[in-house]
Amino acid sequence: MIYLSKTLTFSASHRIYNPNLSDEDNQRIFKNCANPHGHGHNFTLEVVVRGKINPDTGYVIDLKDLKQIIQKEIIDLVDHKNLNIDVKELNGIIPTSENLLMVF
Amino acid sequence: MIYLSKTLTFSASHRIYNPNLSDEDNQRIFKNCANPHGHGHNFTLEVVVRGKINPDTGYVIDLKDLKQIIQKEIIDLVDHKNLNIDVKELNGIIPTSENLLMVF
Amino acid sequence: MIYLSKTLTFSASHRIYNPNLSDEDNQRIFKNCANPHGHGHNFTLEVVVRGKINPDTGYVIDLKDLKQIIQKEIIDLVDHKNLNIDVKELNGIIPTSENLLMVF
Amino acid sequence: MIYLSKTLTFSASHRIYNPNLSDEDNQRIFKNCANPHGHGHNFTLEVVVRGKINPDTGYVIDLKDLKQIIQKEIIDLVDHKNLNIDVKELNGIIPTSENLLMVF
Amino acid sequence: MIYLSKTLTFSASHRIYNPNLSDEDNQRIFKNCANPHGHGHNFTLEVVVRGKINPDTGYVIDLKDLKQIIQKEIIDLVDHKNLNIDVKELNGIIPTSENLLMVF
Amino acid sequence: MIYLSKTLTFSASHRIYNPNLSDEDNQRIFKNCANPHGHGHNFTLEVVVRGKINPDTGYVIDLKDLKQIIQKEIIDLVDHKNLNIDVKELNGIIPTSENLLMVF
Repeated sequence: MIYLSKTLTFSASHRIYNPNLSDEDNQRIFKNCANPHGHGHNFTLEVVVRGKINPDTGYVIDLKDLKQIIQKEIIDLVDHKNLNIDVKELNGIIPTSENLLMVF
Repeated sequence: MIYLSKTLTFSASHRIYNPNLSDEDNQRIFKNCANPHGHGHNFTLEVVVRGKINPDTGYVIDLKDLKQIIQKEIIDLVDHKNLNIDVKELNGIIPTSENLLMVF
Repeated sequence: MIYLSKTLTFSASHRIYNPNLSDEDNQRIFKNCANPHGHGHNFTLEVVVRGKINPDTGYVIDLKDLKQIIQKEIIDLVDHKNLNIDVKELNGIIPTSENLLMVF
Repeated sequence: MIYLSKTLTFSASHRIYNPNLSDEDNQRIFKNCANPHGHGHNFTLEVVVRGKINPDTGYVIDLKDLKQIIQKEIIDLVDHKNLNIDVKELNGIIPTSENLLMVF
Repeated sequence: MIYLSKTLTFSASHRIYNPNLSDEDNQRIFKNCANPHGHGHNFTLEVVVRGKINPDTGYVIDLKDLKQIIQKEIIDLVDHKNLNIDVKELNGIIPTSENLLMVF
Repeated sequence: MIYLSKTLTFSASHRIYNPNLSDEDNQRIFKNCANPHGHGHNFTLEVVVRGKINPDTGYVIDLKDLKQIIQKEIIDLVDHKNLNIDVKELNGIIPTSENLLMVF
């Protein structure tokens, strides 16, 4: 089995806070990540796929195809977006990196 | 003369738009950078200083001191902030990287 | 004045040899770079532009536009090509990195 | 058990095409990777070894020795070569990265 | 389960030699790593932790907390130190990277 | 004119202190860089050369030759050395990066 990885980046803003907690608790737990008007990052997403080599092509998957799949299924949904407001898949979810991994 | 550089990063959100233009013009000119709820980046700031070597220390400037100066004078003002709302030095200025260089 | 840089990469093959010299001289001067069937690299091209900030946009130039210009004027001519055979701008020129800089 | 990794690079050219398919199929499947005169890359090879620490040396293996082994057994065979023509281990094999991993 | 990693660096000096061996054997086995007055490196330490997401925070662990733990438990003990002399945890141990992993 | 750069690294230990000052002053000025048994770094040296292209080779200078010159004239003198003790060119000089630039 061969493992292939493709890494893409996207740029988004977010605010890390839990609406079920008080402002004071949010500030104490999340510190400046809870600043009210948000902040942002360049996020790096690495996707690893596993498979057998296709004997006709010598490829597990064409990396150009893998890039297009990741672009369409994930990057286009979150790039240049506000993760708290603009992404319906993240509705009701604190947009930490860990939760992004669970959703996508 | 010796040149020394120190590179720090900060994380902030911004929206690139010009309030003197229509929404349509902003969308045409700035594309997804004008998305209404903003997005964000990790910004990288490299500061280069020039000077003579102090013969008592062998330093132009202690890089730990240079780091503290940049941290206090610039990074603390913009890190984990919304550049359109939270930074009074950027009041009335489109927060592009170019304009950040001019202001700070 | 503000300096902006954009870095793109391309992948190409080349053989470094001078047809006006003997095979022995080519081997002595260029060593394994003169291997007869060629070899290849990922080349990195950094373009730096200088200009004033447009007060309407806060940009010197939109980096997306700069990327498209470099892509069309240079990268599309050399990417996934054999620099000794496929690029008419390099006809009769030893395809070293230095000569690539002079031609493009 | 300790894992050690050593990363080396080599520069080579290749053409991705399957001689059992038509030129049209090669162009459709492999796109510009099938360009007739080839192209090239800097390839990065990471080798991971696993072992116990030798109590006399504190080493699993001296990384200088590991580097020499990888250099002699793999890098010298492919560096500054045309992978379709110059490497007898790759005779009859489409020189994709996946197939390079299987052969070496 | 989610895996999180945090990478920190430290700067230290060491000499790789085994006091149970002769100077000649140390020189033969460890080469210039056994130079008598030592040398040094910037060491890179990556710590990977595994855990479940805390539903109240969206974090496995706050990376700022993880950084502080690594800083206090490991980095403060070895940074800007001579690993052969200054670190009591390494007393009697050849300070190779492998042995550093076993001790900390 | 073409500018070419070559970057090499070396590993060395040093202690930053001024023997003309008291131990207290050294500790105050240089902090943990003055720790008595030294520490170390991987140093990165970038050499930039400027020249015209030789029309017979397409090179300003063969980078393999430039690498050998830097290796012999600088790297071999400082790599895996204690910069306070082992390098006669640095005799009586505080081995800061700035002073290394002035000496070599």
